[in-house]
Order: sequence, then C-alpha cells, then structure tokens
Amino acid sequence: MATVELSLPDLAGLAPAQLRQCIRTGQWRHLTAGLAPGYTQANLAIVPRALAYDFLLFCQRNPKPCPLLEVLEAGDPEPREFAPGADIRTDLPRYRVYRHGVLAHEVDDITAYWRDDLVSFLLGCSFTFEHPLLDAGIGIRHIELGVNVPMFITNRACKAAGVFQGPMVVSMRPIPHTQVVQAVQITSRFPAVHGAPVHVGDPAALGIRDLQRPDFGDAVPMAPGEVPVFWACGVTPQAVIMQVQPELAITHAPGHMFISDRRDGELAIL
Amino acid sequence: MATVELSLPDLAGLAPAQLRQCIRTGQWRHLTAGLAPGYTQANLAIVPRALAYDFLLFCQRNPKPCPLLEVLEAGDPEPREFAPGADIRTDLPRYRVYRHGVLAHEVDDITAYWRDDLVSFLLGCSFTFEHPLLDAGIGIRHIELGVNVPMFITNRACKAAGVFQGPMVVSMRPIPHTQVVQAVQITSRFPAVHGAPVHVGDPAALGIRDLQRPDFGDAVPMAPGEVPVFWACGVTPQAVIMQVQPELAITHAPGHMFISDRRDGELAIL
Repeated sequence: MATVELSLPDLAGLAPAQLRQCIRTGQWRHLTAGLAPGYTQANLAIVPRALAYDFLLFCQRNPKPCPLLEVLEAGDPEPREFAPGADIRTDLPRYRVYRHGVLAHEVDDITAYWRDDLVSFLLGCSFTFEHPLLDAGIGIRHIELGVNVPMFITNRACKAAGVFQGPMVVSMRPIPHTQVVQAVQITSRFPAVHGAPVHVGDPAALGIRDLQRPDFGDAVPMAPGEVPVFWACGVTPQAVIMQVQPELAITHAPGHMFISDRRDGELAIL
Repeated sequence: MATVELSLPDLAGLAPAQLRQCIRTGQWRHLTAGLAPGYTQANLAIVPRALAYDFLLFCQRNPKPCPLLEVLEAGDPEPREFAPGADIRTDLPRYRVYRHGVLAHEVDDITAYWRDDLVSFLLGCSFTFEHPLLDAGIGIRHIELGVNVPMFITNRACKAAGVFQGPMVVSMRPIPHTQVVQAVQITSRFPAVHGAPVHVGDPAALGIRDLQRPDFGDAVPMAPGEVPVFWACGVTPQAVIMQVQPELAITHAPGHMFISDRRDGELAIL
C-alpha cells in the first residue's frame, strides 16, 4: 500500500504524538521546523554502549554545547521521559547512519540498524529558546531570511572525556545592542537547550575571522547597531562523535528533529 | 613525626588550597562547615568503573537530588575542574569505606584503597545555597540551633538508571510565609546544588507523617507562620549506591566535605 504524503498545512494543529504517527507511517519526511509550535524538538545521537559512558561524561562536562534532555537505556528505543510510547527508530523523518565516521546511509527508518547495545541521546535544540526570544520582540535574522543559522568552529576546546574531544561549535545571531541584555536573560532560563550565550561581541575572541564565512549553515547580514551573540551549538557533539570514527553512529539528519511531548516552557528554570 | 592538630581559629582566613594542605597532612580531621566561607564544598561518592555508567546516568536523570559538579576520569584522583592539584584520596578529613553496602572502615586517607578503576563523583551540597539565603535575611533554623538539617525519605521514586533506583530523600527548612517566594527564587539560581525546592507546604504530599521525626539528621521546631520547604538532598545518591551493595564504594563521612576552589557565586545561573 502506497503511503500518501501530507503537506505542511495538513499538519497544522497536530499534537506531537499525531505528528510522530505521520512521520512513522511515512507521511512526512521533511524538516520539522514550525511543527507542533511550543513543543520541544530534540537532536538525536546514537552510539554503541561501549562508547556511551565517555559520551555521557563528555556531555556532563560540556553542558552548554551538549545539553542532555534524555538518555535512553541501552537497546531501548522509547524516550520514556520526553515522549512515552514513541519509538526513536521510526519517529524522526530522516536519519544519518555513519560507519567509522563516514556517512553511509540517509534513511527514514533505522529499525534495520538497531542493536541491543545502542544508546540514544536526546539533546536540546536552540529552537526551544528562539520562541521566547521572538515572543520578547527579539528578531531572529536567519528565521526572518528563511535560511539556516550560521555556525562557527571556535578556538575554545571542549573539556575532553575519555576518547571524546574537540572544539566548541557556536551559532551566531545578530542582536540589536538595546536587546542584548534581555537576550542573555531569556536564554539563561533555558540551560537544557544551550542556555546563556558563551560570548557577546568580538568574533576574534572565539578565533572567528569572518562572520560572513560560517563553517556550517548560512551567512546572515549584520545591521548597524547589532552585536553578534554566540551560543554553544548542538553540532558540537556530532562533530566530536565523528572524530572518534565509531564503527556505528546514528544521528538525525540536519533539521529533521525528534518532536517531543514536552512543552518548551517546561524546560525553563525561573 | 607527630602531626600537630590545628583548632578552628587557626583555619580562619585560609584559602581552600591551604585548608586541603592542612587536611592532607592530618592537621584537621573534623567537620568542614564554616571553613573557607564563600567556596563551594562538595559531597564525594566513589564507585568502580563497572557501576559508573549507571550511576552517571542516575545523576543525569535525577539532577535535583544528584547535582553533579565534576566526574573524574577512572583512576584519576585529581579534580581538575574544581580544584586543580588537589587529591581526592587525601584532601577530605574523613571517609567512609563500604564493602558490599556495609560500612567497613572510617578513615582519613583512602590511598590504601585506591584502584585504577575507581571513578570519583563530586556532587553539590546545600551549604552553597544556604549562604545566599542567609545573605537575603532568610534564617536557617538548623544553623541557628547548631544541629544537622532534618532529612526525610519521601514517597517520590527517583528515576531508575540501570541497577540504581530508590526514593528521593529531602531536607526541610522552615521558612516564614513572607519569605517563601524569595527562598524559591534564590535557590532556583543554583541548579548545581539541588536548585529550587521540590515541594512547599504539606509534608503529607511527600509521604512524610511527622516533621518532628526525621529519618536522618535532627528535628527542628516550626514557628507560627512558617512553612516547611523541602529541597532534594545529597543523601539520596549515597542511599541509592548502598542499596546496590557494590563490592567497594567510598564516600565522605557526613559533614566532612571536599573544599573546592570554586566560589559559590560561580555556580549561580542568572
């Protein structure tokens, strides 16, 4: 039986569980931005149990780039905290399967790759703090332009843990100088999704030479009176995993996130 | 050569590194409360590497009772983040060594027990948030009375992780109803040391029958107009470790904490 693909208007107003059902049945294989507004979306990283302790420790030591939302038991595909009943193997629209650090497959279901020793990590995503910024009247340039956020490899080393090490990757958003303090305050309330900025102002302090040449994502223009503000970025843990070249690692495809049952506001402290 | 024991006035004004030196050389084997005011003190839990992943995951899933400050590499006795140069095996005034969940030795040096597979966990301690409460004019009853904080085993289960599971233990502080909101706000700024209360008011909601009969510590009187406020307690992880009866586990002796180089204020967010 052929599955009928849905279009974006069909999905408006659907709850996270309904959206995951559409994704699981192959009716939605596209980007998740804008789906289930107000509900937290998460990055996914899956590694074998033999690497899981070092990776968990890496996240504990580097909470800003690697904000853990949930770590599933080895072999368990159900995120019992963030989406009871969901299945991490089928409920994301697109996955990347890496063998020895090399992208081997891009698929919409990882059931065929599943093993009892795989440990799934759900990590916070900046989508969660961008909504409160927008609600406070702070514009997000890359959203306004419909492009990907610009990301940069910095000169700041993450704290190593076992086999994992590497530089911190940051995302940059231009913020009017009149709103910088508020942007710091708002994102500080969300330590589970990268939290406060790691740097405000001069890109050179992070070893970034040219804001118009990001390492990942798209360049965005800076307007007069705007300050570049840098947040730790979820690309960091993925880059660090790939450097170790594990025999198997699985991640979401960029922008194809896991849609959880938790509301963004639940992740706020204060 | 006999070591000369120091008295409390000798230690006033000493920096954390100097205090650890006094402890290391056997000149101070007593409680650490009040030493190096403004510097963070930490709980210590040491387990074999074979249990470390489950315990790290337990802490990740239960950050309020088990707020991780630092996890040392297996076999490494130096807390490189919180006190570079320190030695976790000698720099606490008193340790408890457990064999199969039973207290086997109480010692002031664990070098003889050290193994390459031991993983040390430093966990946040409520001392860190009691100072800002006092600074804000919120009295801490058990400090006023010079007794230990009252602690209670609750009816709330921690989230299990691998072999670790058990109920949350809480500490209780009576707070005047006019200061409850402020106490919540202040402690919310310190997620690394138990953070916001887990409950305000009726003890029965936590399954606590009698505030005057704590499971650990000392009972304290409630004055008219005071509300019992409950914070997750660092006794939780120790109780959970003992339940698993590991062949070896080592902790600080109650009140004999690790004195770190980090200032309390550095642990505040916002």
